[in-house]
Amino acid sequence: MGDSNERNGHGSLTRVLFCGPYWPASTNYTKEYLQDYPFIQVDEVGLEQVPDVIHNYHICVVKNRRIDSDIIAKATQMKIIMQYGVGLEGVNVNAATEHKIKVARIPGSMTGNAVSCAEMAIYLTLGILRKQKVMDTAVNRKDLGIPVGDTLFGKTVLILGFGAIGVEVAKRLRPFGVKFFATKRNWSLDTLPSDVDELVDKKGGPEDMYEFAGEANIVITCMTLTNETVGIVDHKFISSMKKGSYLVNIARGRLLDYKAVFDHLESGHLAGLGIDVAWMEPFDPEDPVLKFPNVIITPHVAGVTEYSYRTMAKSVGDTALQLHSGQPFTEVEFVN
Amino acid sequence: MGDSNERNGHGSLTRVLFCGPYWPASTNYTKEYLQDYPFIQVDEVGLEQVPDVIHNYHICVVKNRRIDSDIIAKATQMKIIMQYGVGLEGVNVNAATEHKIKVARIPGSMTGNAVSCAEMAIYLTLGILRKQKVMDTAVNRKDLGIPVGDTLFGKTVLILGFGAIGVEVAKRLRPFGVKFFATKRNWSLDTLPSDVDELVDKKGGPEDMYEFAGEANIVITCMTLTNETVGIVDHKFISSMKKGSYLVNIARGRLLDYKAVFDHLESGHLAGLGIDVAWMEPFDPEDPVLKFPNVIITPHVAGVTEYSYRTMAKSVGDTALQLHSGQPFTEVEFVN
Repeated sequence: MGDSNERNGHGSLTRVLFCGPYWPASTNYTKEYLQDYPFIQVDEVGLEQVPDVIHNYHICVVKNRRIDSDIIAKATQMKIIMQYGVGLEGVNVNAATEHKIKVARIPGSMTGNAVSCAEMAIYLTLGILRKQKVMDTAVNRKDLGIPVGDTLFGKTVLILGFGAIGVEVAKRLRPFGVKFFATKRNWSLDTLPSDVDELVDKKGGPEDMYEFAGEANIVITCMTLTNETVGIVDHKFISSMKKGSYLVNIARGRLLDYKAVFDHLESGHLAGLGIDVAWMEPFDPEDPVLKFPNVIITPHVAGVTEYSYRTMAKSVGDTALQLHSGQPFTEVEFVN
Repeated sequence: MGDSNERNGHGSLTRVLFCGPYWPASTNYTKEYLQDYPFIQVDEVGLEQVPDVIHNYHICVVKNRRIDSDIIAKATQMKIIMQYGVGLEGVNVNAATEHKIKVARIPGSMTGNAVSCAEMAIYLTLGILRKQKVMDTAVNRKDLGIPVGDTLFGKTVLILGFGAIGVEVAKRLRPFGVKFFATKRNWSLDTLPSDVDELVDKKGGPEDMYEFAGEANIVITCMTLTNETVGIVDHKFISSMKKGSYLVNIARGRLLDYKAVFDHLESGHLAGLGIDVAWMEPFDPEDPVLKFPNVIITPHVAGVTEYSYRTMAKSVGDTALQLHSGQPFTEVEFVN
């Protein structure tokens, strides 16, 4: 990508655009990290203003903005399109490649994102096992000692997509006295920890998910959203889960088929649903699926912690500094 | 305590009284467990009716009923006063001893009570770290990606009272990447696990709690309520905690001094409070302490899970069967 002047096109100022207004701490923490570098300018605009201003910027942090070929065609000075995290499903990578724009994610295993998401997966799992909404109702009614909850102890947990987050979930759930099943496309990856066989009782490929679901009490989805995985938790999958089992999603909302989830909550086949991500975001708080007393939702904050957000602000900031100075990029993983 | 007829006073029927109406599953699950034994009768009455009927019963499961010397004097056929769990702070044990009534608890390490309480302690800790109420507000406002939460990772956790529950908490929190301090009166007890030195980074006696608090980010109270421990989490203790630290109580409400907690929430010294137990129970849902956005409460259900409640129903049921038949007691621990 050449030296600094070639890279940012006008030498003295490197401009970073955050697509707002959601996850505001990503912008604020990056601005704080870069406050002593006046030659890096960090701005945020609302999702709908992005097409009008994107031609001014060298780096774009997409958050939940879709970046399709129309927008990429307007990004005439753009060098890097990146995510504040790992999910790049909204970015047309082929169009970016055609326009010689690099597309990057921040690997979750390095930044605390995977750790933060794993803790949130455990929080949501405990929340549905203990019937969070029913507990709140009991407090408000001045009831005591109800509801009867369920323990993680003694359960079988199935992780769909055993990547960086799944590994961190497994490490943490081991001493809770659970059995652990996981599916993954490629188990030979050297990113897996050396003790993976001690963490996972049954390993399988994507084709094993239906059989594993029949033995699991809790399913946690940790997959990337792709054309293959969109809607993968469908009627066939959920009906292959045990009656009375629990479903947790901390990855992407559209991994789950809405109607399949709704129908199995209505029938009582699913005992609980805990989601940090939804089909549309922000999700309508009046949506019927949230009316079930055994459904809890959080506002897409699994990875949003002081720890991961400070670390990822450093990743974005260092990437901007490296682009500006022509140094090698050390903080991000390019996908094209 | 002699043979069966001597024990229950009238041969054919052993009567068990549950002091209701709270924790209803304790009564229901015990009735289910004993449904094939018509010579054991299980009843529940409200707290205020207990003095009027207690003379008819051989076993009393107190739940949150105070059993003082007045009531004990009326319990003319009583053989065993017990808790559905471990906490016996409401029972006048000396008066029971005078009347030749045994007082018993169900050891938590055997029944899943400690495991259930440990899971709840972790749920409440994650709930305040992630700012549960602020997340709910964000969902309802259609915000996304706020609030910025905090991780367990990197924190120092102090357990006050390292008994059966504390051990289970420590085992589970180890892989979260936390440091672990604990205080306990007697570290030489053989009830501690053999790997206690691997679980706990700093062990101390009650006198060390103030110094340890100065280094901890999260304090979890797991102590028994006694004359020595009532109000032990007072102004002196909380002000010795770090500014911005978190407090979790899954033991007994009156371990905490209400005003000290309230004042330190108001000043921002405490970053969050998660409690399963309160100063009065049921607790007034309109109490000012619950109005802080960083306070969450659950309805005294830490030990209330399918696992522990089914197991404890067996403990009560077997104790009734053993009393009836004159067999040795195998399920409970007598304190007098």
